[in-house]
Amino acid sequence: MNGAESLVRTLVDSGVELCITNPGTSEMHFVAALDKLQGMRCVLGLFEGVVTGAADGYYRMAGRPAATLLHLGPGLANGLANLHNAKKARSGIVNIVGDHATYHLAHDAPLSSDVAGVARPMSDWVHCTPNAQAVAAAGALAVQVACTPPGRIATLILPADAAWSEAAAPARAAAAPVRETVTLSAVEGAAAALRSGARCALLLGGIGVREPALTLAGRIAARTGCAVLSEFNSARIERGAGRVVTQRIPYVVDAALAMLREFEHIVLVGAKPPVGFFAYPGKPSLLAPAQCAFSTLASVEQDIVGALQALADALQAATVPPAHVAARVAPVRPEGPLTLDGIAAVIGALLPEQAIVVDESISSGRGLAGPTQHAPPHDWLTSMGGSIGYGLPVAVGAALACPQRKVIALEGDGSAMYTLQALWTMARESLDVVVVVFANRAYQILRGEFANVGAGAPGQRATDMLTLDRPALDWCALARAHGLPAAQATDLGGFARELGRALAGDGPCLIELLMA
Amino acid sequence: MNGAESLVRTLVDSGVELCITNPGTSEMHFVAALDKLQGMRCVLGLFEGVVTGAADGYYRMAGRPAATLLHLGPGLANGLANLHNAKKARSGIVNIVGDHATYHLAHDAPLSSDVAGVARPMSDWVHCTPNAQAVAAAGALAVQVACTPPGRIATLILPADAAWSEAAAPARAAAAPVRETVTLSAVEGAAAALRSGARCALLLGGIGVREPALTLAGRIAARTGCAVLSEFNSARIERGAGRVVTQRIPYVVDAALAMLREFEHIVLVGAKPPVGFFAYPGKPSLLAPAQCAFSTLASVEQDIVGALQALADALQAATVPPAHVAARVAPVRPEGPLTLDGIAAVIGALLPEQAIVVDESISSGRGLAGPTQHAPPHDWLTSMGGSIGYGLPVAVGAALACPQRKVIALEGDGSAMYTLQALWTMARESLDVVVVVFANRAYQILRGEFANVGAGAPGQRATDMLTLDRPALDWCALARAHGLPAAQATDLGGFARELGRALAGDGPCLIELLMA
Repeated sequence: MNGAESLVRTLVDSGVELCITNPGTSEMHFVAALDKLQGMRCVLGLFEGVVTGAADGYYRMAGRPAATLLHLGPGLANGLANLHNAKKARSGIVNIVGDHATYHLAHDAPLSSDVAGVARPMSDWVHCTPNAQAVAAAGALAVQVACTPPGRIATLILPADAAWSEAAAPARAAAAPVRETVTLSAVEGAAAALRSGARCALLLGGIGVREPALTLAGRIAARTGCAVLSEFNSARIERGAGRVVTQRIPYVVDAALAMLREFEHIVLVGAKPPVGFFAYPGKPSLLAPAQCAFSTLASVEQDIVGALQALADALQAATVPPAHVAARVAPVRPEGPLTLDGIAAVIGALLPEQAIVVDESISSGRGLAGPTQHAPPHDWLTSMGGSIGYGLPVAVGAALACPQRKVIALEGDGSAMYTLQALWTMARESLDVVVVVFANRAYQILRGEFANVGAGAPGQRATDMLTLDRPALDWCALARAHGLPAAQATDLGGFARELGRALAGDGPCLIELLMA
Repeated sequence: MNGAESLVRTLVDSGVELCITNPGTSEMHFVAALDKLQGMRCVLGLFEGVVTGAADGYYRMAGRPAATLLHLGPGLANGLANLHNAKKARSGIVNIVGDHATYHLAHDAPLSSDVAGVARPMSDWVHCTPNAQAVAAAGALAVQVACTPPGRIATLILPADAAWSEAAAPARAAAAPVRETVTLSAVEGAAAALRSGARCALLLGGIGVREPALTLAGRIAARTGCAVLSEFNSARIERGAGRVVTQRIPYVVDAALAMLREFEHIVLVGAKPPVGFFAYPGKPSLLAPAQCAFSTLASVEQDIVGALQALADALQAATVPPAHVAARVAPVRPEGPLTLDGIAAVIGALLPEQAIVVDESISSGRGLAGPTQHAPPHDWLTSMGGSIGYGLPVAVGAALACPQRKVIALEGDGSAMYTLQALWTMARESLDVVVVVFANRAYQILRGEFANVGAGAPGQRATDMLTLDRPALDWCALARAHGLPAAQATDLGGFARELGRALAGDGPCLIELLMA
């Protein structure tokens, strides 16, 4: 058994069932091992950002790491932006990155680079296997690291000669450590704050925005009158009718300041003190008022559910019916021109039970929360790292993890262009993804940000850098060229028809919303 | 004047005339400065790999660095693969990478990352400006570094508050150091080897494959009988009728070993001892025979032209008519099915005077050298770093540098998918680029490599990872969706018609070769 076979067996025996690949010559033995051995599904991406983003989406929905297969330093580099997003989302991923044979590195061949140096900024753990004998143990450790709650990026560099030389027997990853129980004083501190009469909020992050944590937070809110907040972005928030609604802290600094102004104490539950996405001249970085106190009930790594249960017990809230539960409201399905509010209403009206929404709609999607919170229960995924191009790949991964559920990817046209190759993987794997592109033909958010940073009104050169017209991208043609059926909508009625049709069918498709 | 304006003025005053951008919020002041000040052409790319690859192509043809504008760590990360290629091509680039305001970094906002850490593996120089006052001097130094022969990757990190705060006056880059003259002993060593009667070759790299070095090499070959070789890849090689033909060292190891077997002494002129692109089990890394001696006439950084002139003088070859000069041969224009040899013949027959060929045809292009070497004089650019996805962006940069010349980008379909967003920039800027896609619907080179590494015959899972069918990409639709006219060719006659039509027109277009 060679090193590649030893590693594939180790991954499979350690519970890794999916390998998303974009291989090159130095990974051919690994490809041969995937070919020969059973137990690993292989999915090809035509660009590495698709590969790493798909692994992120898979972890968010499956709760288990996928492996990626990447080609040397530049291949890894192409996947870094979505590894950044995955790392910030606390997803677990096992990256297998090929490198030249160890003896070949001294010769500085064209593809030689500092692979570990490329990996380090976006990985929690980086290791280079020195030889084939060490591959199995390194692979088992990589899986264990990736599975460490809430999830970590483990990057294992596999030199070509470690892949092709005779190896040791496969290994099996040790169980990952369980989430640490929070201290009694953390629970008592939060309870004291919530009992103090101060205006309090629970700020939920990590798995705090999923069941059973959400219901516990709702019970605590019912007992104490506290608000229930969530961060602007969540790796995976559970929403919809019957679920506790969290107030999402806005992206826009002034709106966030206004929302948080009233609070005297914020209890952090898997979240950090809220901070602006960017800094702006004359505006604060921290969004809570200066006099607001913070206490940490649980960090994102700790036992968030246990901590909320202990807090609910301490407050005699454990059996109180939760507050802020979203009702099922009969949807309205508006007609007329494509307004953002109207689009949001259509999505809210048609969202199916157990849908997975991957939201990279950026400026176009700011109004989506209200009209969708009364829809049937669903998951909503946003970018934790802020690097655009996360959406289509994460949708691929979510669909691979949950083949029985509908995935809806909401995409700004600017964002979708970064990793549009994901469309091809959707087509090849017949993934049940409906892609909705908000084609406003601009980096619309930047048009706002240009003003927000105090740069005034953009002239021609700046406008050219903030717009995607001249020429306009044809999203239906892009989709069809990648193998997806596609349709345009120019008004809300047309959008509702196309979305309804898409959700009734199987397999991927794309709807282009031609925004005014 | 704020820091962004100070930096833009510094770049312009230092001779940087082109900024290729993919900005975000933290770069809005820089965009505003580009908008307000005169002297910098701005070109938008819809993905950062397009931006950095275009800067590479621009330097190869213009000999001056362009600036790039990139958004924080993940934006830079998306550009790294083509920075790797540019660094290996010894291109000079000034990367301006925005970062959060310095005071904002402590709060670990979503887009925070180790920007310098991301930059380092693919940069020759990395610097973070601490404040607006230091911006001008840092910018001037970055340009000087980028201009240091043969060219370097300079990455300047610009925190948002350094961009928006009051700054010092602009600066101007000091002149870059000139190329170092080689030692007399280097010249004498090479001359002695060439006079020794041993089977000798000159191995040319860097600007050694361009005029006037090529002619000098041809004179030396005429005098001494030595062979004239070039590396497998060249950043920019001058070819065609009337020019000295170099023998390109093959990619395939066995073919390279066979070619080099006869040599007893290789004189390195801007090149390194030849090494395999990859390592293979049981095959050597070094391609020259063990008993072959090497002497270095000039490194790639040194004065290659002066060294060759001194060597020619030492050999009394300075006025000898050069050997190995390609004649103008009347082209044949074959008809029939799309064979690789036939395609090469069509390209050779139609290549216009002063064409710039950007070759990322990978396995499909191995036969191009012969049929094109008798075409009118032209430049031929290949990937020095081996990371695929270099071709379309480099073609963008070459066209920006040389608006009067025809650019022909030869692309494998697999490779072109990595940075297909470059098509949009071609359309927006009306660049005179003819893209030819060899649509064989496979990572064809990997099908060979799978066998080369000894992995045997691929099964279904491996085949799926090496093929791009299911579904087939529609390259004409992709081109049109990005704003380019496009046509398919299914035989050589059709290809010749479409290529002829494309070369007769202006502006970008794409021809898809439907390979059997």
